[in-house]
Amino acid sequence: MAAPIRVTGARITPVAFVDPPLLNTVGVHQPYALRAIIQLDTDAGLVGLGETYADVVHLQRLEAAADAMVGLDVFALNHIRAAISDRLGGDSTGDGSGLAGMITSASVVDRVFSPLEVACLDVQGHATGRPVCDLLGGAVRDAVPFSAYLFYKWAAHPGGAPDSWGEALDPAGIVAQAKRMIDEYGFTAIKLKGGVFPPDEEMKAIEALREAFPDHPLRLDPNAAWTPQTSVKVAAGLAGILEYLEDPTPDIAGMAEVAAQAPMPLATNMCVVAFDHLKPAIAERAVGVVLSDHHYWGGLQRSRLLAGICDTFGLGLSMHSNSHLGISLAAMVHLAGATPNLSYACDTHWPWKTEDVVKPGVLAIRDGAVAVPTTPGLGVEIDDEALGALHEQYLRCGIRDRDDTGYMRSIDPTYEAISPRW
Amino acid sequence: MAAPIRVTGARITPVAFVDPPLLNTVGVHQPYALRAIIQLDTDAGLVGLGETYADVVHLQRLEAAADAMVGLDVFALNHIRAAISDRLGGDSTGDGSGLAGMITSASVVDRVFSPLEVACLDVQGHATGRPVCDLLGGAVRDAVPFSAYLFYKWAAHPGGAPDSWGEALDPAGIVAQAKRMIDEYGFTAIKLKGGVFPPDEEMKAIEALREAFPDHPLRLDPNAAWTPQTSVKVAAGLAGILEYLEDPTPDIAGMAEVAAQAPMPLATNMCVVAFDHLKPAIAERAVGVVLSDHHYWGGLQRSRLLAGICDTFGLGLSMHSNSHLGISLAAMVHLAGATPNLSYACDTHWPWKTEDVVKPGVLAIRDGAVAVPTTPGLGVEIDDEALGALHEQYLRCGIRDRDDTGYMRSIDPTYEAISPRW
Ligand SMILES: [Mg+2]
Ligand SMILES: [Mg+2]
Repeated sequence: MAAPIRVTGARITPVAFVDPPLLNTVGVHQPYALRAIIQLDTDAGLVGLGETYADVVHLQRLEAAADAMVGLDVFALNHIRAAISDRLGGDSTGDGSGLAGMITSASVVDRVFSPLEVACLDVQGHATGRPVCDLLGGAVRDAVPFSAYLFYKWAAHPGGAPDSWGEALDPAGIVAQAKRMIDEYGFTAIKLKGGVFPPDEEMKAIEALREAFPDHPLRLDPNAAWTPQTSVKVAAGLAGILEYLEDPTPDIAGMAEVAAQAPMPLATNMCVVAFDHLKPAIAERAVGVVLSDHHYWGGLQRSRLLAGICDTFGLGLSMHSNSHLGISLAAMVHLAGATPNLSYACDTHWPWKTEDVVKPGVLAIRDGAVAVPTTPGLGVEIDDEALGALHEQYLRCGIRDRDDTGYMRSIDPTYEAISPRW
Repeated sequence: MAAPIRVTGARITPVAFVDPPLLNTVGVHQPYALRAIIQLDTDAGLVGLGETYADVVHLQRLEAAADAMVGLDVFALNHIRAAISDRLGGDSTGDGSGLAGMITSASVVDRVFSPLEVACLDVQGHATGRPVCDLLGGAVRDAVPFSAYLFYKWAAHPGGAPDSWGEALDPAGIVAQAKRMIDEYGFTAIKLKGGVFPPDEEMKAIEALREAFPDHPLRLDPNAAWTPQTSVKVAAGLAGILEYLEDPTPDIAGMAEVAAQAPMPLATNMCVVAFDHLKPAIAERAVGVVLSDHHYWGGLQRSRLLAGICDTFGLGLSMHSNSHLGISLAAMVHLAGATPNLSYACDTHWPWKTEDVVKPGVLAIRDGAVAVPTTPGLGVEIDDEALGALHEQYLRCGIRDRDDTGYMRSIDPTYEAISPRW
């Protein structure tokens, strides 16, 4: 009989890292982004790593979930998920998604289970001497391509020093941002976060990107800032230019209305964010591409299920990101590396951050891609000093929940988050 | 960097084992059932086991597929499947399914990949010291329940000695068969293979079973022997008696017509046997329960995908069987043990066989269920002497493809396989 590797506890450390003033349709990124770092301890002495949101409600749920895992084998993932589901007992109060109110209908159980599953897979990898991708069917590519993720942004947080990227509030600023990002990282696809300015202005930015980068696939993501009518107009205007249009309008019904008329596929990380959404979205032909994200799809194994569903039902598959550190990137790379039908460059906020909790050297974007780690587990290690410093920063910064809208209103009291805005 | 465990070759041994004259809608089981036993060799000295059909075309494809795997890591399952797909190069000539012409539209690649994937998982399990179920998310139950699988049958093959079960050609014979099977194995659900006699007679058999076993869930599977019209009539007549009605009529369109009127769920292992069939079947609401079978759904990992799809789209999940030996049963038990939404007792032909290739003692049906093995890998070992003897029997018996219809016609030259028959 094989010896189980039992969970003895989890150290869950909230951290804060410096984040530039990136604009979106619900406001602006706060000066610090929050993450929770999980170190899962086992009776074998092996430690597994996970990373997730750090909103207060989510931290509380993580503590409860970690407690429910004590004594369970890291290979017993079905059992662990059931134990967490039982412990949470239907708790879905509050959001706690760390996603600024934009993704509120994902499964609470899947969101809480996810980083703990990743940590279990990290332990499994260390115990078996295999990289995590090998526990997901094995890598199908040596490196995972990512997109240049462009944002409208201010030069600085109010009262703060300017960051190195400077201001980007018009087509010229966006093109300059793209040039630097592509020079530095070699990205071969470009995504613009929209929903900030009226659609005409954002279309001009996309057209300027097309002119500056004639061969880069382009995407625009206004986070449901537009009505179906506006969305159809923008889609027609950008025919032949966008590889996909991401979440132009809210809800499955709205997306279906736009999809029926748009010349390009619609992608989503807003109207299909849980397994419950797949059946209606497929029945209504609401989307052509699903942006997966293991942080709310229930971890790496369930993200493989999502990938298989996309393959089975003829949907494209890409990958969503929000502000994250190295443990999340490692998990994303192992997952994407082992997913045959992940046919688009993945999104990442990676270039926007200047701090991390993992030891440097493993993860780097070269030629627009990150090599899939080949060492056991996730292949990343905690830098204890960095973790301590970012935890201190969390304690000091005072931010306890992500709130792009509240932060924007603290700057402009007349600001209101409205969806659809145009 | 983790050391790969590379495939060095596969020993593929066709075997024949004694099979009783079990009747179905396309004829009768031949005196021997065929299986191919796979022993996958690796440079680590570990050997993985797999079991599948042994029809001539299938054996040829298995040899080609095994050759395409040489040098690949047993953890590189995505890569191995792609290599097999490339090597088969779209070959879908002939059937070679070992399923007597009843399931011909399953994926050739998935059918060939399956036993090789199982063998890779067996190696993975031995290399990591974990039972195969742990590589599938971990067992959610200690034992997997199976159903008593009843058949109309003759007392003996023509010219042969009677088997111990005797004749079962009417309700009394079926009830007697059920009594013995439940006495010996403790089954808690009952399935009758129908499509042999006119529907009225088979309904009487089901009613007799209900009377004799008031608490056992009952199923009837005529293998698409009926028109939609007949199916609707039978379904109405058996309302409140069957837990599901299996493949009453051919094709997704026919099943959808019946499903709209039947009072119980329809189950299938005929109109949904490949991932391509899921989208249309779900769109047309053709079935309520899918009977999975890792032998043609592409192995254990892809059967998990099927399970996840059933869960996501609100379909029930059960498990199909055809005549098999111990390696297949072990794989079925690991898979079912690790599948949370496998909510029905699985089918198995196990009680009908008297010979095997695995060492006895690990797999046994007690209280209607098989305990999930907890030792590394599949948990079964080849009995070399038994394997040799059943291979000799294969060479001697002269049967090279399963052909229930041809065998029936050799006994009754007027016999014709017609679907739907009634
Ligand atoms: Mg998005
Ligand atoms: Mg059947």
